[in-house]
Parts: sequence; structure tokens; C-alpha cells
Amino acid sequence: MLVLITYDVSTMDREGRRRLSRVAKKCVDHGQRVQNSVFECILDAAQFRRLRYELEELIDKDTDSLRFYNLGDNYKSKVDHVGAKETYDMSDPLIL
Amino acid sequence: MLVLITYDVSTMDREGRRRLSRVAKKCVDHGQRVQNSVFECILDAAQFRRLRYELEELIDKDTDSLRFYNLGDNYKSKVDHVGAKETYDMSDPLIL
Repeated sequence: MLVLITYDVSTMDREGRRRLSRVAKKCVDHGQRVQNSVFECILDAAQFRRLRYELEELIDKDTDSLRFYNLGDNYKSKVDHVGAKETYDMSDPLIL
Repeated sequence: MLVLITYDVSTMDREGRRRLSRVAKKCVDHGQRVQNSVFECILDAAQFRRLRYELEELIDKDTDSLRFYNLGDNYKSKVDHVGAKETYDMSDPLIL
């Protein structure tokens, strides 16, 4: 299934920037970066549970958030892109 | 149906920051801000077409991007949130 993962990580301090980098790296390892904080991951249910747990461990739940959207197996017609590059360089966990 | 809208707008210059503000404002007018650049909008097909067109008009397609995810009518079980505040203040088009 396609799982869309989006995140907001507070980068007000160095620790936040570290968290952001770790979250981005974890997502890069499991999917396709389609926007700065938006990843599309093809996962089975067990992989999803594990990734979700690992990401939860990386964030500060008081300041950061994760959202997961399950788009199922028939996702191609549900996704539409407009504008600049469809995908990011996977090796580049951007920090804005 | 629930349409998830995500965007990346280049804010390297003042015009980009203006575009970001306009895109955020347009999304705020049509849905719920759930993360900084992530909106959930309940739309019918005609509303979706119009909003998509209006957003396309606001961005610079060489530097900015929009993504639309159609989560259909039965979306509640497909969405999962972890961490800080579930929703943003609608009146606050954050610029990071």
C-alpha cells in the first residue's frame, strides 16, 4: 500500500534541527521524497507499523507532529502533481 | 471527498514569500491546516477542480509544486496523527 507521511518538526533549536534531520533520513530510507516534508512509501502492514513506531521515537511529541495517510494499493489515480520537480534527491534531507 | 493538498513554494525571494502567503491563504479558505504546508479539504468534484485551477494560477511552476491526494469519502480510518497539535490556527499562514 502507499502510505503518505508528512511531518512538522520544530527547528527552533539545534536539537530540533537534529530531530528533523533524523526524521528526514528515516523517511528517505523507506520511500520517495516528493516535497520537502512529504514522503510516499510503499509498505506492507508490518513495515508500516515498524516505521511508524521508529518515527514516533524520533520526534518530540510536544512540538513535532507526524501524519500518515493510507492510500491503499490502487493509489495511482488518487495522486496528482503540479509544478516543479516530481521528486527530491533521496540523499538530501533538506532543512529549511 | 477529502482532498489532501501539500505544497512546496520557494521562498528564496520576496515574490516567493508572497506566493507562499497567497497559496496558504487560498488553502485556509477551503480547508483545515493540519501541518505547515498540509491541508485537508472536504470538496466535491467541481470545488476541487476550481481550487486546483486557482492554486495552479498562484504558483511558479518552475520553482513551486502542489500535490493533491484524493482520499475519497471514507477517509477517517485512513488518516493518523502523532504528536503536537492536530490543527493549526486557520488565520496564520506560517512562513518558514
